[in-house]
Amino acid sequence: MSMKNYVIGIDFGTLSGRAVLVEAATGKTLAEATHSYAHGVMDETLPSGRALPPDYALQHPSDYLDVLRVTVPAVLEQAGVAGEEVAGLGIDFTACTVMPVDAQGEPLCLDPAMADEPHAYVKLWKHHAAQGQADEINALAEARGEAWLSIYGGKISSEWMLPKLLQILREAPAVYEKIDRFTEAGDWLSRCLTGKETHSAPFAGYKALWNAENGYPSNDFMKALDSRLNGVVGSTIFPHVCGMGESAGFLNEQGAALTGLPVGTPLSLPMIDAHAAMPALGLVGEGDMMLIMGTSSCHILNAKTGKCVPGICGYVKDGVVPGCYTYEAGQAAVGDIFDWFVKNCLPAAYEREAEAQGIGLHKLLREKAKGLRPGESGLVALDWWNGNRSVLVDASLSGMLVGLTLRTRPEEIYRALIEATAFGTRMIVEQYEACGLPIGAVCAAGGIAQKDEMMMQIYADVLGRDVRVAGSSQAGALGSAIYAAVAGGIYPDLGAASAHMAQPDRCVYHPQADHVAAYDRLYATYQTLHDYFGRENPQLMKELRGE
Amino acid sequence: MSMKNYVIGIDFGTLSGRAVLVEAATGKTLAEATHSYAHGVMDETLPSGRALPPDYALQHPSDYLDVLRVTVPAVLEQAGVAGEEVAGLGIDFTACTVMPVDAQGEPLCLDPAMADEPHAYVKLWKHHAAQGQADEINALAEARGEAWLSIYGGKISSEWMLPKLLQILREAPAVYEKIDRFTEAGDWLSRCLTGKETHSAPFAGYKALWNAENGYPSNDFMKALDSRLNGVVGSTIFPHVCGMGESAGFLNEQGAALTGLPVGTPLSLPMIDAHAAMPALGLVGEGDMMLIMGTSSCHILNAKTGKCVPGICGYVKDGVVPGCYTYEAGQAAVGDIFDWFVKNCLPAAYEREAEAQGIGLHKLLREKAKGLRPGESGLVALDWWNGNRSVLVDASLSGMLVGLTLRTRPEEIYRALIEATAFGTRMIVEQYEACGLPIGAVCAAGGIAQKDEMMMQIYADVLGRDVRVAGSSQAGALGSAIYAAVAGGIYPDLGAASAHMAQPDRCVYHPQADHVAAYDRLYATYQTLHDYFGRENPQLMKELRGE
Repeated sequence: MSMKNYVIGIDFGTLSGRAVLVEAATGKTLAEATHSYAHGVMDETLPSGRALPPDYALQHPSDYLDVLRVTVPAVLEQAGVAGEEVAGLGIDFTACTVMPVDAQGEPLCLDPAMADEPHAYVKLWKHHAAQGQADEINALAEARGEAWLSIYGGKISSEWMLPKLLQILREAPAVYEKIDRFTEAGDWLSRCLTGKETHSAPFAGYKALWNAENGYPSNDFMKALDSRLNGVVGSTIFPHVCGMGESAGFLNEQGAALTGLPVGTPLSLPMIDAHAAMPALGLVGEGDMMLIMGTSSCHILNAKTGKCVPGICGYVKDGVVPGCYTYEAGQAAVGDIFDWFVKNCLPAAYEREAEAQGIGLHKLLREKAKGLRPGESGLVALDWWNGNRSVLVDASLSGMLVGLTLRTRPEEIYRALIEATAFGTRMIVEQYEACGLPIGAVCAAGGIAQKDEMMMQIYADVLGRDVRVAGSSQAGALGSAIYAAVAGGIYPDLGAASAHMAQPDRCVYHPQADHVAAYDRLYATYQTLHDYFGRENPQLMKELRGE
Repeated sequence: MSMKNYVIGIDFGTLSGRAVLVEAATGKTLAEATHSYAHGVMDETLPSGRALPPDYALQHPSDYLDVLRVTVPAVLEQAGVAGEEVAGLGIDFTACTVMPVDAQGEPLCLDPAMADEPHAYVKLWKHHAAQGQADEINALAEARGEAWLSIYGGKISSEWMLPKLLQILREAPAVYEKIDRFTEAGDWLSRCLTGKETHSAPFAGYKALWNAENGYPSNDFMKALDSRLNGVVGSTIFPHVCGMGESAGFLNEQGAALTGLPVGTPLSLPMIDAHAAMPALGLVGEGDMMLIMGTSSCHILNAKTGKCVPGICGYVKDGVVPGCYTYEAGQAAVGDIFDWFVKNCLPAAYEREAEAQGIGLHKLLREKAKGLRPGESGLVALDWWNGNRSVLVDASLSGMLVGLTLRTRPEEIYRALIEATAFGTRMIVEQYEACGLPIGAVCAAGGIAQKDEMMMQIYADVLGRDVRVAGSSQAGALGSAIYAAVAGGIYPDLGAASAHMAQPDRCVYHPQADHVAAYDRLYATYQTLHDYFGRENPQLMKELRGE
């Protein structure tokens, strides 16, 4: 019997990193520690004070190392566990968060000569300044009939690796010249810990246009995009993609120094932060779907087969569960719509009422809206305040609200917006099913799932199926710890590790039959409007945006 | 040369009556006086304290007489004019504002035995409790293929005379038994002043289903509606309709006592308050259109021919200008939509900003919205917050807003709502033109026209034509004075009287070419949505309302 009874998972988010130390036999979290990034998100200036253009979002790679230095010793000390008792370490990271490094793996921005150069820094996932490059890639791929484009629903995002790399090439060719590798921050961190280079399948598959069958886009495509991209895969982009069943390696001396763990501690492959939660929620079987609900939403589905599902963001083999295809779809605005509503549409009388009651504005609206019957307000909305990311894949679509009368009240609009996001999720679920991908368990995670009972009940009623809510609020870090338990040899595979370590649901929302029937009728209207504005007349909303 | 150089017009509104004393040669107002109705609008209780059902709106007829007693002597005294110098008196009244009277013309509610009976009182135009009766009349008329139904766009309103009379018959048959005449308050007031019964063409034509060619609905129809309505026209409804060219008669002793004017002073036929403004604005020729903009809007057009224009509320021969057909169309909510927005959708920060600046909420929104370029917000709305009264004539339609994004601001929505009402007006204008009724001068009156420069400029830009704004804020009372000048023999006809007495415009809004082009494009989108929701799929909004 090994003494290595513990594993550590670290979740690298947008503003901080959070480590958990977990009992491998039970998944019980014994200690957790968070460290905020000293540089946060750099969207206005560099550390030098240099101003950044609009839509920039940069980070500083030393912040990630600080998270290792601070949080791993902290959880060991809190739990009273020695480094030798840790069977494995796992990390998950935001993506696509990418950075240029030199031949030694040193980030270019750490070279004092480049400290004042924005393009030498980490481009955070939400760096949106490469939209022009994304447009160019989409146009070329469509013109050339590139097969991989259909995997991503016909359009790639400015957040992904190739637009971000192309932006450097076009706007800072001198920086581009100095790049040895352009790497995901998660892969870079893995290299820092083990000395071994990897390109993790979830990063490559969801963000770098790679797929298991055909690899990366062809060199012909890259050359057509820019002759200087000749040979980019294999030089600037590390070509060897590892599925989640493979090992990332073992901590070397540098890794041990960064963490305080022994040399040789196994490291699991870095994961995308959102996906890492799946094993923590027990979602490792075919048909399991995780619904991550926050400012936007993400729908992640395990399946046994790989298919091009029209309008779904992409799928990756071995991207979450070894041997499985994991699909991803998304709604571009969910919580963002409700925040927009509260900021822009909530009358002063309601604000005063919330103050008098000492509750938040969202809570006040939920209190007022929860007694409404489905359909009572006569309102239906299309939830496209930030375009439609899945099924229609059209960023130029916009929000719509119908059924307004002189008697319409704010809480009725608020509820209609919530219902619209639920209808949008049902559209995605039905799109998966229509393409022969069965949906089994649905489990919701993220801030909204934890906080908003009315919204979760509406989702169960609209979907007409049970919606589980994740028990752990640190599901990402716990998921990384579960991968670490497999890497550490405690369990033979992810399914076994998840079966033992996943945490129980916080609760389950069951559909209410009368609400299901009412929402079926409203959903039919939503579908009619969805098809009218999204499929039959997409130019209507496009023209309104002046496109 | 007559010494009778003055005329008096009295405008009976919803809450008060206003008299003006006017110089007949110039139209110049020398004095004005207002008297509020002591009982106001009774929508909660009777004077006895008895509670009223929902949607009731009653008035007390003695309040109208008090207006005569107070205001006419007041304007004479203010102007230093003797009653003998007054060439004529004219009145205009809200409609359809109807009341039951006995054989002597005494209102039933003045009988102490009936003081506690709601159905004995005046039913104000906005008494909406006869909707069930209106529905019944519409269904029967449609089933029987009644030709007159098409004059009113296929549907009559619960505000009109027959639904209100039918409500008494159904709900208070004992009151119905006591009715000698069911009369417009304006006609009743005329009878009080002259002793002579009339039924003025505007009241009969716009509110009592009468038309010059075919008279009232047939007795067969009335009997089919209710056997007790057998012979109702000629008994309960005074059958002899007078066009605006005819005389109402001359003040008798009672009329002289009520006003302080001499016996024999000519009285012009009572007018509908909204229409009375037309001669005051110089709108007495073919193609002249008055746009009355308030909580709702009304579009009144003079034409040489009588035609059934689909979806237009009605037309009446001699209803405003003798020898002319005057058409009426309407938008069921205009100012009401903006008020709804400010009450239900305006964020607290805006309220605080308005307070800090010491300006009203609408003014703040106009200040913020006026710099927006047409189409800049990407929003388009359908202005059907209270259904569609003209062109589509469908009360079950509802408001719609499209083009919403996370960047949409309140003032952009506010402007889109204003633009939507302008597009709705353009729809009506184009419907008139499509039916061969030319539109010439467009002159706006009402509170919005006087106050909201941004909105008036938007109307000029959307319509692509000059929009004049009425100069007088008392155009109704001045119009009645102009009719009085014809009745008093000062001028040979309304055209001559209007030419001398109409007051100059306050201002004219000219269309701006670049805005016209931009709004032409947005209007095309409005038309697409109008037809989709209003014509091709009207059941969509109907089902949302649960109808």
